[in-house]
Formats: sequence, C-alpha cells, structure tokens
Amino acid sequence: MLKIIFLGTAGSFPTPRRSPSCIFVNREGDLFLFDCGEGAQRQMMIAKCGIMRISSIFITHFHADHILGIPGLIQTLSFNGREEPLTVYGPVGVEEFVELFISLGRVRLGFDLLPVEVSGGDTIVREGYSVSVFNTVHGVPSVGYALVEDERPGRFDRERAVSLGVPPGPLFRRLHRGESVEIDGRIVTSEEVVGKPRRGRKIVYTGDTRPTNETIKAALGADLLIHDASMADDLGDWARQTGHSTAGEAARVASEAGVGQLVLTHVSARYSENTDVLLDDARRIFGNTLVAYDLMELTVPYPE
Amino acid sequence: MLKIIFLGTAGSFPTPRRSPSCIFVNREGDLFLFDCGEGAQRQMMIAKCGIMRISSIFITHFHADHILGIPGLIQTLSFNGREEPLTVYGPVGVEEFVELFISLGRVRLGFDLLPVEVSGGDTIVREGYSVSVFNTVHGVPSVGYALVEDERPGRFDRERAVSLGVPPGPLFRRLHRGESVEIDGRIVTSEEVVGKPRRGRKIVYTGDTRPTNETIKAALGADLLIHDASMADDLGDWARQTGHSTAGEAARVASEAGVGQLVLTHVSARYSENTDVLLDDARRIFGNTLVAYDLMELTVPYPE
Repeated sequence: MLKIIFLGTAGSFPTPRRSPSCIFVNREGDLFLFDCGEGAQRQMMIAKCGIMRISSIFITHFHADHILGIPGLIQTLSFNGREEPLTVYGPVGVEEFVELFISLGRVRLGFDLLPVEVSGGDTIVREGYSVSVFNTVHGVPSVGYALVEDERPGRFDRERAVSLGVPPGPLFRRLHRGESVEIDGRIVTSEEVVGKPRRGRKIVYTGDTRPTNETIKAALGADLLIHDASMADDLGDWARQTGHSTAGEAARVASEAGVGQLVLTHVSARYSENTDVLLDDARRIFGNTLVAYDLMELTVPYPE
Repeated sequence: MLKIIFLGTAGSFPTPRRSPSCIFVNREGDLFLFDCGEGAQRQMMIAKCGIMRISSIFITHFHADHILGIPGLIQTLSFNGREEPLTVYGPVGVEEFVELFISLGRVRLGFDLLPVEVSGGDTIVREGYSVSVFNTVHGVPSVGYALVEDERPGRFDRERAVSLGVPPGPLFRRLHRGESVEIDGRIVTSEEVVGKPRRGRKIVYTGDTRPTNETIKAALGADLLIHDASMADDLGDWARQTGHSTAGEAARVASEAGVGQLVLTHVSARYSENTDVLLDDARRIFGNTLVAYDLMELTVPYPE
C-alpha cells in the first residue's frame, strides 16, 4: 500500500478549515511525514495515522508553517514512551532547528531526534524504495522530495509455467524471484516464465517553490505530483515575489513531467473555502488535478 | 461582557477532540489568552476570537503543552500586519522563551513581543480590572492568575432622584459618578440616590497545579474558578507524583473558596471522550461544576 493523507493543506497560516503544511505517507507500513506544520500531531490522531510509528520527517524548508508541529509531536512521542530514534531530514540549518525544537520542551526526550542535512542530488536509500532530494526555489534553502519505489519483478506467466511442467507451489516463487528450477531433468529459467521488471510507484512533493525545471526532471513519469499552488493565475506577480507557484504554473510542471495525477496544496487563505478558481486554472493545462483538503486520503495504485 | 472560550482543554498532549491548554477571555473588548498550547491560532480562528486584537498572553508555566501555540500565532499576526506590541506574562524564564519563540520564525516580527516576568503577589493593573498572580505547585516555576474587576458604582435610585426634584438627563449621570448637584438652591448628594459600590466579577485560572491554600485564597468569592483536574480521584497518587489535581481535589478548593462555579480542565486523554467520572468526583463535593470541552463558551454575569 502507498497511502497519502493530507494532514495540513493551508498556505502560510492556518484557517478554520486548513491546518498548516503536513503530509502523511504510509509506504507498506513505513510511516513518515513531508513537512510538519503546527497541529500535525493532532491531525495525525484524528486521521489515525499510527503516530507512534513515524520513522522520519522530511522538511522542505524552515519556514514556520512547515515545522512548528515538530516540538509538540516529539514531546507527545516521548511522553508516550517512544525509544526509537526519529530522523528529521531538511536543508542546511536542520541541526540548529532540531536543537531549538528540543529546547522548547525543556525535558529530556526519551529517544534521539536525529538531524540529517540534505540538498539537491542526495538520495536516501531504504528497503524497497528511495527518497531523492531536488533543489527548489523559494528564497531560502529549500528542497523537494521524490519517493521512488524499487522495480518489482515482472509478471509471472502461470499458464506457461504449468505448460513447462512446473507444479504450482514453492517452485513458482523461486522462478518469480529470478532463480532457475529443474523439472524432470530439464532446466526452466526465470526468463521463460517471468516478464520484464515493472517500475515501482513514484510520488513527488515540492514544498513551497516557484515552478522549476528541476521539479519537472524530478517528477518525470511520477504517479503523483504534489505541488505548491498557493494562488490562482491572476496573482502571478505575487507568486513570483513570494517564491510560490500559481495553480496554472503547477499544472504546467505536471504536464511537462508527464505525471499521472496532480494535487495542488499550500492553498492561500483567500481560497480556503472555495478553490474552484485554482482547479479551473490548473485543469485548463492538466486535466487530472485535485485540490488537497485537510484529511484527504489518496491511495496510489501500481501503474501496471 | 466577560466571555470565556475554552480553546484547548487537553491534558499533556492533544487528542482528536481536545487541543492543548488555551483559554480566551474577552473582558469588555480587551482580548487575551491564558496559556497558548499548540494549535491556539487555529482554534481562535474557528471560534472567531478576533485574533488580531489579542493584547496579552498569560502563561502559567513553560511546559510544552501550554506554550507551543505562541510561535505560530506571532508569525500569523506579523504576516497579517500587526504592529501593536503583544505582552507575554509568565514565571521566571519568560524572557528566554520569548527569544526562542521568535528564533523559530526566522523572520523579523512586525511588532514587539514583550516578555514580563511575574510571580506570586504581583498585580497587573489595567483600566477597569487587574490581574493578580499567585504561586502554584507543579514541580517547575508556575503561577495562576485571578482577573478581578474594579468595583462598579452602586445602583442609581431613579425614583428617589426624581422625588428630590432632579430632572432625568445629565444630572443623573453626574450623581451616579459620585458628584453632588444643585437643584433650585438645594444640594442633592450622590449618597442620597446611589447605593453601595458593587463588586466586579472575578475569574481565576490555576494552570497545572496541586490543590493549594494559595489558590483557595486567590479564588475567595470568585464567580468562576477554572482548575486543573487532570485525573479522577482514583488516580490521586498519580496526580501527586505529576503535580496535578484530581477532580475531587479541584472541587474541594472551589468549595473552600466559596466560588460561584467550577470548571475542570486539562483533561487527561484517558477521559477525552467520556468525562463522567470527573464530573461525579467533583459534584460530590461542589455541585456547580462543569467539565470544559474545546470551544465551550461561558459568559460571566455581574453578581448583582
């Protein structure tokens, strides 16, 4: 399963309907956050995210609306007995901020909060997937993240295996894993019954940014692109001045990267209650677009 | 008007239903907060508190669940153009914490955030009311606050004034203010037509604390006492170890102080969905008790 819950979808400050930036990801039981705005812990509780099992927080940049949920979250984890370390990835400054987050609590945490500085080009390799870091443009050190799953084995041709005399059962699994097996003195190779490896899923989150070629490159062929769309196109000048993207600009990135689906987030308070204009601006350029709302859930299926 | 909105009523960490500690007070248009837990700004927006006009924040102690709403609140105020200073009252350490709150934002605030250290016995005098500080017992420097309105003039005896020959209008107001007036060569004094001064309203908030005689003293005759009641009476040992009060202990304080109404808050996550046991434990000792819930509003009427 690759499930995403949009815990906070507000722009620079919350509104009655929207909490500041925070996205929860459950990738086959590995739980983490992209950004962690104020109120993230309570949103995680409301969405039943399994708050105690979060392994990492990927911060895009150190503006307040993307980080202020961390001090409270770590207090609550410690209070409830967490002992496993929690890693905070982020651009330059992450070590200093992690110290600040801990200082605010004034109690010794029961676990280690580990800062890891990242920048464009870095890749964090994990079991079954990796997270690639790309630089973004927001006026302060900032990055986006691309979660890319490893390739999966090709499809197993069950009928062909049977026709080659392989009995269903453990030998099927060995063939699917790439091994050869011997049937009545004859060797059946994996290649005979298993198709080409299939790509895994890919989701990309930009954080706050102007539209950039680096994002297009990072998002090439992604199943899902989650892009800053703070404003509608008529506020293009304002988006340029503040280092954000309009809905149309986000859609152009999605289109050029050829992604499967676009989700707009970091929605300015102007549109908190009615996001039609954002959707219209984006869909003129890229049809399969949604505007995120708090607690919206998406499950990303395998492409094939 | 003296209106109170309970923005956050959780214990040490939030739950799906309860945000961390924060109480909003509107005293005749003067708006302030008692404590400011994570998520306070969004709760203020939901409750339509007039977030931009907050004049002060009274912090009871520097545990995370009472302060983590400040960094985000000040960012949002600054972002939306606030220029008026905002005062943060709190026990020793307040200056250091105010620096931390500002550091987290990494932008120059558009207004001054002013720390003011207080301790038991201090009184903050304001137009029409004062806030008295009393020490509490919670294992770290901690205080509670008593908002005490100035006396109001006594009732104006309109019939008696007319019978003394005073025509309704400006002379009535002068008499009510304490002045004497002359009617057809005769002096009518204020004392002849105005009753004894009437006391103003009084509300008391303890923050986190064991039950104490200082609280009883500070709360004598209060219209409303808002008291820590983290746990039910069967967890009395745990309350003692953690520096909190049980519901029954809070009720005993209310009873001995002879307050008008008791509101229990800082409700442990154990009781987040069902607070019956807290209410039962308290009402056995003090009848007029409520358990606070998020966004609960109370208006405190004049006693006479």
